Amino acid sequence: MYSFKNDYSEGAHPRILHALGKSNFEQEEGYGLDKYTLRAKELLKEKLGRQDIDVHLFSGGTPTNLTAISAFLKPHEAVLSASTGHILVHETGAIEAAGHKIISIETEDGKLTPSAIKEILDIHTDEHMVKPKLVYISNSTEIGTIYKKHELVKLKDFCTQNNLILYMDGARLGSALCSFENDIELNDLPELLDAFYIGGTKNGALLGEALIICNNNLKEDFRYLMKQRGALLAKGRIIGVQFLELFKDNLYFDLARHANKMAEILKNELSQLKVTFLIDSYSNQIFPILAHNYIKELQKKYSFYIWQKIDSECAAIRIITSWATKEEDILVFIEDMKKLVEH
Amino acid sequence: MYSFKNDYSEGAHPRILHALGKSNFEQEEGYGLDKYTLRAKELLKEKLGRQDIDVHLFSGGTPTNLTAISAFLKPHEAVLSASTGHILVHETGAIEAAGHKIISIETEDGKLTPSAIKEILDIHTDEHMVKPKLVYISNSTEIGTIYKKHELVKLKDFCTQNNLILYMDGARLGSALCSFENDIELNDLPELLDAFYIGGTKNGALLGEALIICNNNLKEDFRYLMKQRGALLAKGRIIGVQFLELFKDNLYFDLARHANKMAEILKNELSQLKVTFLIDSYSNQIFPILAHNYIKELQKKYSFYIWQKIDSECAAIRIITSWATKEEDILVFIEDMKKLVEH
Amino acid sequence: MYSFKNDYSEGAHPRILHALGKSNFEQEEGYGLDKYTLRAKELLKEKLGRQDIDVHLFSGGTPTNLTAISAFLKPHEAVLSASTGHILVHETGAIEAAGHKIISIETEDGKLTPSAIKEILDIHTDEHMVKPKLVYISNSTEIGTIYKKHELVKLKDFCTQNNLILYMDGARLGSALCSFENDIELNDLPELLDAFYIGGTKNGALLGEALIICNNNLKEDFRYLMKQRGALLAKGRIIGVQFLELFKDNLYFDLARHANKMAEILKNELSQLKVTFLIDSYSNQIFPILAHNYIKELQKKYSFYIWQKIDSECAAIRIITSWATKEEDILVFIEDMKKLVEH
Amino acid sequence: MYSFKNDYSEGAHPRILHALGKSNFEQEEGYGLDKYTLRAKELLKEKLGRQDIDVHLFSGGTPTNLTAISAFLKPHEAVLSASTGHILVHETGAIEAAGHKIISIETEDGKLTPSAIKEILDIHTDEHMVKPKLVYISNSTEIGTIYKKHELVKLKDFCTQNNLILYMDGARLGSALCSFENDIELNDLPELLDAFYIGGTKNGALLGEALIICNNNLKEDFRYLMKQRGALLAKGRIIGVQFLELFKDNLYFDLARHANKMAEILKNELSQLKVTFLIDSYSNQIFPILAHNYIKELQKKYSFYIWQKIDSECAAIRIITSWATKEEDILVFIEDMKKLVEH
Repeated sequence: MYSFKNDYSEGAHPRILHALGKSNFEQEEGYGLDKYTLRAKELLKEKLGRQDIDVHLFSGGTPTNLTAISAFLKPHEAVLSASTGHILVHETGAIEAAGHKIISIETEDGKLTPSAIKEILDIHTDEHMVKPKLVYISNSTEIGTIYKKHELVKLKDFCTQNNLILYMDGARLGSALCSFENDIELNDLPELLDAFYIGGTKNGALLGEALIICNNNLKEDFRYLMKQRGALLAKGRIIGVQFLELFKDNLYFDLARHANKMAEILKNELSQLKVTFLIDSYSNQIFPILAHNYIKELQKKYSFYIWQKIDSECAAIRIITSWATKEEDILVFIEDMKKLVEH
Repeated sequence: MYSFKNDYSEGAHPRILHALGKSNFEQEEGYGLDKYTLRAKELLKEKLGRQDIDVHLFSGGTPTNLTAISAFLKPHEAVLSASTGHILVHETGAIEAAGHKIISIETEDGKLTPSAIKEILDIHTDEHMVKPKLVYISNSTEIGTIYKKHELVKLKDFCTQNNLILYMDGARLGSALCSFENDIELNDLPELLDAFYIGGTKNGALLGEALIICNNNLKEDFRYLMKQRGALLAKGRIIGVQFLELFKDNLYFDLARHANKMAEILKNELSQLKVTFLIDSYSNQIFPILAHNYIKELQKKYSFYIWQKIDSECAAIRIITSWATKEEDILVFIEDMKKLVEH
Repeated sequence: MYSFKNDYSEGAHPRILHALGKSNFEQEEGYGLDKYTLRAKELLKEKLGRQDIDVHLFSGGTPTNLTAISAFLKPHEAVLSASTGHILVHETGAIEAAGHKIISIETEDGKLTPSAIKEILDIHTDEHMVKPKLVYISNSTEIGTIYKKHELVKLKDFCTQNNLILYMDGARLGSALCSFENDIELNDLPELLDAFYIGGTKNGALLGEALIICNNNLKEDFRYLMKQRGALLAKGRIIGVQFLELFKDNLYFDLARHANKMAEILKNELSQLKVTFLIDSYSNQIFPILAHNYIKELQKKYSFYIWQKIDSECAAIRIITSWATKEEDILVFIEDMKKLVEH
Repeated sequence: MYSFKNDYSEGAHPRILHALGKSNFEQEEGYGLDKYTLRAKELLKEKLGRQDIDVHLFSGGTPTNLTAISAFLKPHEAVLSASTGHILVHETGAIEAAGHKIISIETEDGKLTPSAIKEILDIHTDEHMVKPKLVYISNSTEIGTIYKKHELVKLKDFCTQNNLILYMDGARLGSALCSFENDIELNDLPELLDAFYIGGTKNGALLGEALIICNNNLKEDFRYLMKQRGALLAKGRIIGVQFLELFKDNLYFDLARHANKMAEILKNELSQLKVTFLIDSYSNQIFPILAHNYIKELQKKYSFYIWQKIDSECAAIRIITSWATKEEDILVFIEDMKKLVEH
C-alpha cells in the first residue's frame, strides 16, 4: 500500500538525521536556549531580511497556532477564518478551548479577501458580540491554492486600516513559495504579515515549525506563553538543529520544489487522461475527480482521502506529494490509472 | 564548561538515534497511529502487566501533565501538590491556565501523605471553595527523594476512600525505580495509581513521555483532548520508535541505573570530604551544601543550579547526573573539589 | 419616545415589587439558601410535576446559559445551535470563552431538527474535530417562532439515541407556552429536555431565571460551578421571592398571555393595512416589513430594531411587546401607521 | 434565631426599595445604558473627584473580581493576594478558572506590604514561572482590618515602580472608610489604586457593586468582557437606581457608620466582660475569643461563624454587624453574654 494521504508519512530528510546525530553528544542548554536554536534563529532572520523579528521554534502546527493566536488576543477578541481553515475544522476546537470564537467565512478557493472580512466587521458592532481581531490565513491553503503577492498586500493594508492582526499558517509555506504561480519571496513576508510560521514537519523535518513575530506589539513575554501551553521542548536543540540544516543552503526550498513537481507531473498526466480537478491548485495537493469505481480500484493499492462526493458517479480525492515522493511511484500510479481508464 | 544542571543536556542515547534512522523511510500513519507507536503501547502494557490500561505518547512533561490533569477534572475541581511540585512552580501556571487551582502543601521531603491531604480536605467543605480532587505526586520528587511502596499503598487507599484521583509525574521515574532504596516494580504501578507517566526525555530519549491511564473512568475520548492541547505529534512515530527501543530490553533501566550510580559515586566521595547534603536523596539528584567561595570556584568550570542559600557561609547546590554522564567527568569534579578543600 | 425594542424596558410587575418589600426586613441565609428560594424551588417542582429535578436561580440569561452549558460539557465537546441562537450571536462569545465551540446550523425558522443535527454528526467523526454533544434550542426562538410538542419529542428522541444533551433557552418561555399555537404544557418539559430555564427577566421580574436540570447526570456539584462563574447572588432571596410570586398563582402565564395578545392585536391590525411579515411568529415578537420612509417616520416616535434590510424599498423591523405594554399604546401605534399608509 | 453571620442577611434599606418602586414603570434602555445608571456613574465620578475614571456596575463581588481581574491580565500573569483574600479562598477558584494563578502570601493582619510582595517578585524570574502582575487587596480586609493612607501610598508606589496593577476589593469599603481608625477619603482612592470597587450589597443595596477603573490602560472594551462573563444585567437600571440613592447624599456612609458603631458597642461591652479578640479590628467585623461552652449556649439563640479554634478551651467567632443591625439586638446579646459569664 502506497500512501498519498499526507506529507508527513515518512521521517526526516537524511541530512536532518545526519545533523541530529552529529550534534547529539554535545551538552547544550535546555528549552531552546542552546547554540543550535540560537543560530537557527539568526539564520532565519537573515533569510527573512529582518533583524527586528522574533523567532520561536515549535514541535507542530496546532501548538504553534494555539499558542500564537491565544497570546495575541484578549478574551473577547475573535478570529476570522475561511471555512476550510485548519484551526476551524481540524484542531479539535483548540482556539475555542483557549477562549476565542472563530468566525467562519465561506470562500470558493480557501482564501480570504478584504471584502469578505468587511462583511463580518460590519455586523459586529457592539459589546454583545465578539470583536473580530485576528485574520487567519493559510498559504498554501488547505485546498492547495496559494496567495499572490497583490492579494497579501491588499489584505495587509485592510488589516492595518481596521486594526486587525494578519496571521498566516505556513504548515505548507515551502510548497506555496515554490509553486510556479507564486510571486512572493520569503523575505517579503515580514512586511506583509504580523506573524506567521514556516512549517518544517511537512517539508523534511522530523518535527518543527518556526513562528515569526513581525509586529512588535505581539512579542512581549512570548516564551512564558509557550511554556504555559506545554510548547517549550526540554531538548529544544533538536528543532534548532533541523531548521539550521533546512535553511543553511536551499534544502527547504529544494524539498518543497520536489514535492510540487511530483504533484505537477501527476496533474499533467491525469489531465491527459481527461481527468478534471475540483480545485485549480499548483502546490503539493491536487484534487482529481474520479469515478467511484476507479477510486475503489485505486484504494486497493493506494491510500488517500476521499475529499468530497460530487455525485452518484464520481468524487474528488486528495493526493498529497512530499519531499519523499519518488517519481517512479508517481509513474506507477499513472500506469495504474491508465489501465483503469483504458479498461 | 561541564554541565550538571539537568538531565536533558545531551541528545539521545545512540540506540535511539539508530532506531530513528532505521525506520525513517517507511511510510506510516500520522498522529500516533503508526505501527511503531502501536507496538510500543503493546510493549508497555506487557511490561506493566496489564492489558486494560491506556497508553498515550507525549513530547514532554508539561504537555503530559497539562493534558492529563485538565482532562481528568471538572472546572471546580482542584489539584493537591507538594509545594515543590513541578506543576506548581515550574510550568508557568499551565494547570491554572486550564482552569484549575493547585493547592500547595508544605512538606519536608517533597512527598505527600494521607494526613497532609486530609488537612486540606477538612477545610474544603462547601461550594464557596474549590473541591480537592486530584493528588499530584512526583517520583522521584523534584528534590530527589523517592516513594516507598508502603507509602504509595497508603496514599492510594486514602485516595480511593476519599474519591480522589492519584496521579504521578514520572519525569524521573527511571531514576526512582533504579534507586537502591526503591522497592517498587514497574508493574506494581497500575495498581497503585489512577494515572502516571514514564519519562523518556530525561532518560535517554530525544523527546517523549508515556502516559499510562489505569482508571477506566479517565480514559474516554482522551485523544480528543491531546489534539485540542496541541499534543498529538504529526509524526507520532518518532516517539513510538524511541519507547520501543527503550523498553524492548532493559535499556530504560540500564540508563537510569547509570545516572543513579554516577550520583552515588559523587555523593560518597563528597561525603568523604565532609560535605553534607540538604536532602537525603538516592536518585540522580544530589544537593551538597558548599561554602560560597567553593561554589564560586566550581562555577568557573561547571554549571549547576544554586538551589538554596543556607546562611552567610554556604548554600546548597543541585547536581544532576544522567545516562550520558561519564564516570571520568565525575572523577575530575571530585579532584577539583579535593583541591578546593585541601587548599 | 415609546419603546418596542425589547421586553425588559420596564422594571417589575407591581406584585413583584410588593413581595420584595414585604420580605425585606427578615433575616435570611445568603446565596440562595433562604426560605423564599427554597419555597420557590418546591413550587416549581410542583408545577413541573417532578420532585427529582434540580432548580437553580440565576440573575440573567447569559450567566444561566454560560454556567449550565460549560458545566455539562467536557473541554472537547461542542454545542450545536441554530445560526440565530442567542449564545452564538449575542453573548460575546461567552460559551467559547468557557472553552467550547458552537457549531452553527442554518435554519429558516430558527428551529433545529433531527436531520439538521444529523448532518453535523456525520461529518464529526474523529479526534481532530470537536465532538458535538449539546443541542441548544430556544423557545420561543430569537425570531419569535415556537416549538410544537411533536417537534420537541422528535428532537429529544434523536438526542437520546445519539447521546446528546438537549438544552432549552427559555428566556421567553412564558411567551412560547402562551402562544395560541402552542400545545406544550409546562409539566411536559422535564420529559422533553435534559435541562432548560424559565425566564423571569423578560416576563415581569426585576431579574431572575430558573434553571431546571432534569437529567440526573448533569446535577452533581452544580452550585460549585455557579459560584465559580460569579452566578450565586449574596442576597439570593430576591430571586426566590420573585419566582414565588410569579408562580404562586398564574401570574407568570397571565403576563405572558398579555404580551402575546398585544403582539397579536398589532399583527392583525397591520395585516389589515396590507403589511406583510418576515416571519410567521405567534409570540411577543413580530417582524413587519415596512417601507424605509415609513420606518423613518415611525422612528421619530418609537424605538425598535431594524432587523433586516429586504431591498431598496423596505426592511423588516422587530417589535416586541411585554407584560407592561398597554393596549392604548398599541392602538396609538396603529393609528400612526394608518396615517402613514393613508397619507 | 438572630443572625450575626454576615452583612447580607436582610434585603435593602427602605430608601433603596422606594427608589426602585418610583422608577419602576419608566421605559429605559437595557444593559446599563439607562438614565439612572448614567446618572449614578456621573455622581460617582463627582464624589471621587475624577472625570477620567470609568465606572461599571455589577451584581456582586465575585463577578466584579472575576471580570476585572481576568480583563486586566494576560494568560501568564498572576495575582498576588494575602492568604486570607476572598478570591483565594471563597470564590471557588473563579480566578483560576479564568486562567490565572493566585500566589498566596501569609500575613498577620490580612494586609499586603511592599516587602512581602518583593519576596515573591524575587523568586519569579523567568518564563518557567508565572509573572506576578496584579496585587489584590481588600479594604476592609476579610478579617476586619483596614489600610491606613500611608500604607496604600507605599503599596501604590511599589506597584508603580514594579509595573504591577493595584486592585482593591471594596466589598466592605463603606465600613473601612467609616472606621474611626481610617484616614482615607473616598476621593483619595483614584490616585492610590489602578482599579477598585465600591460594595453596595453589604451596605444597604439589594445587589450591586461599582467598579472604578482609574488606570487608562485597563479601560478598553471593558463592556465586552462584562457581557462575556454574564455580568451585564438586562435591567441594569436596578443597580443604577440603587447607587444613585446610596450616594445622592450620605446614605452610603451613614449606613456603614451605623454598622461600625454596632460592632464597636459590642466590642466595648465584651471587653468589659474580659473577652479578648483574635484580631484588633475596627470595622463591622469582630472576632471575640470565647469558651466553647459559651459558644454552644450562644448558638441556641444566635447564628455566627466559628472562625478559628484556639485550643481545647476556646475558639474565636466572627460577628458581623450591618446597616440593619439594631442597637437593641446588640444589647440583648450583651445581656445574654453577661448571664453566661456571671453564671
